[in-house]
Amino acid sequence: MNVFYLPDAQEGSVVLPEEESKHCVRVLRMEVGDGFLVSDGKGFIYDATLEIPNPKKAVVNLSNKRNGYDHWPFRLEIAVAPTKLNERIEWFVEKATEIGIDKIHFFTSFHSERRAINVERFRKIAVSALKQSMKSRLPEIDDIVPLEKLVKKPFNGDKYIAWIDDDVNDNLCDVYKKGSDALILIGPEGDFSLEEANLAITNGFKPVSLGNARLRTETAALAACFTVQLKNQIQPSDFRP
Amino acid sequence: MNVFYLPDAQEGSVVLPEEESKHCVRVLRMEVGDGFLVSDGKGFIYDATLEIPNPKKAVVNLSNKRNGYDHWPFRLEIAVAPTKLNERIEWFVEKATEIGIDKIHFFTSFHSERRAINVERFRKIAVSALKQSMKSRLPEIDDIVPLEKLVKKPFNGDKYIAWIDDDVNDNLCDVYKKGSDALILIGPEGDFSLEEANLAITNGFKPVSLGNARLRTETAALAACFTVQLKNQIQPSDFRP
Repeated sequence: MNVFYLPDAQEGSVVLPEEESKHCVRVLRMEVGDGFLVSDGKGFIYDATLEIPNPKKAVVNLSNKRNGYDHWPFRLEIAVAPTKLNERIEWFVEKATEIGIDKIHFFTSFHSERRAINVERFRKIAVSALKQSMKSRLPEIDDIVPLEKLVKKPFNGDKYIAWIDDDVNDNLCDVYKKGSDALILIGPEGDFSLEEANLAITNGFKPVSLGNARLRTETAALAACFTVQLKNQIQPSDFRP
Repeated sequence: MNVFYLPDAQEGSVVLPEEESKHCVRVLRMEVGDGFLVSDGKGFIYDATLEIPNPKKAVVNLSNKRNGYDHWPFRLEIAVAPTKLNERIEWFVEKATEIGIDKIHFFTSFHSERRAINVERFRKIAVSALKQSMKSRLPEIDDIVPLEKLVKKPFNGDKYIAWIDDDVNDNLCDVYKKGSDALILIGPEGDFSLEEANLAITNGFKPVSLGNARLRTETAALAACFTVQLKNQIQPSDFRP
């Protein structure tokens, strides 16, 4: 089933944005009466029927507003330092959207290889991943800020910093509690400096490890995302003796 | 710390392969007495010291043979249908090697978009991921075979097929038991045909879901890999009331 993205979706007749209209009418050659789904990126899915196949502003009728299958009862935000190779972070944005994430932050730090990002391109990648994976939630993607600014942003939940250090013995998959809101910091290729790690810790971030593998920045970010989603899916009974 | 790959490593003086010698002497400009690590890809790591900086056949002294940090006490094999876009499977090979996997199988099936792979290129990608993530275990990568042949291969452990079907209620993260050996089949973009799924089931593969997200083939394959690794790391106590 095809999914189109319409941020201001509501039941009744609505007009698809130009890009979505073109995809619907020109690329997929949909005709009057054809059915598909519309996601508002805010957690809701609608049944849609094509009314006017205008390739610039297709009119569709939306009904049966409902929570997407991907509804999750917690908030997951990940903050990552962009990698030298931009495609690695684009990959993270796509995969994190597929697996499920509420917000992606980017930050610059002492060992950052890249200090500028094309946030609009990242948002496009997230939209296409949302459509591909039929998701109802599109992650917010913030433009890049210095780490010092990011760690001071208010966040109403548990804050973690994935940091490679001999003193860090807690594994995210153990300390993260099912159902809790989490913001997780993932360092750059050169890791955080000691000063940066201490700054995060004094701002309430708990140092955690992501397990016994040395991961690239973008892999670590996805691993953190996946750990939280999986911890929320595993049934406690699996571990009862 | 730099890691080099030497499949037939043993303690004492050994010669690095030409490609590794070039990387060590020409690219990293290492000199006599410089130290690094050598991985044999079979689970062992050695301390290494450069003895003769020959850019074609560098001689290094290996000592302190030991298990890598990434030692895991179970066997994980994943079989996946190659994606239309080759880079997506290359990405899976890299990430699965980083996260930890023993063997990667490829198969053709009814809905396969791609029926040929460059297995040598995949092996090179795995080696570079092994070096990057300082791993001691290099996944075996088999050339592509038809699904009918793959499902009949003997495997001494639990066999799963990730299949999108209304009747499939078991989630891999629930049914997979910590410490057990697993072989997991991941279908092509068009999923398995009903006949293929039944063929796998009659050959002992248990249908499982990978959770409540619709994932691309390569994302599903990585999710399966990550699920098994994470399930083996989570402490049961996390779930005690």
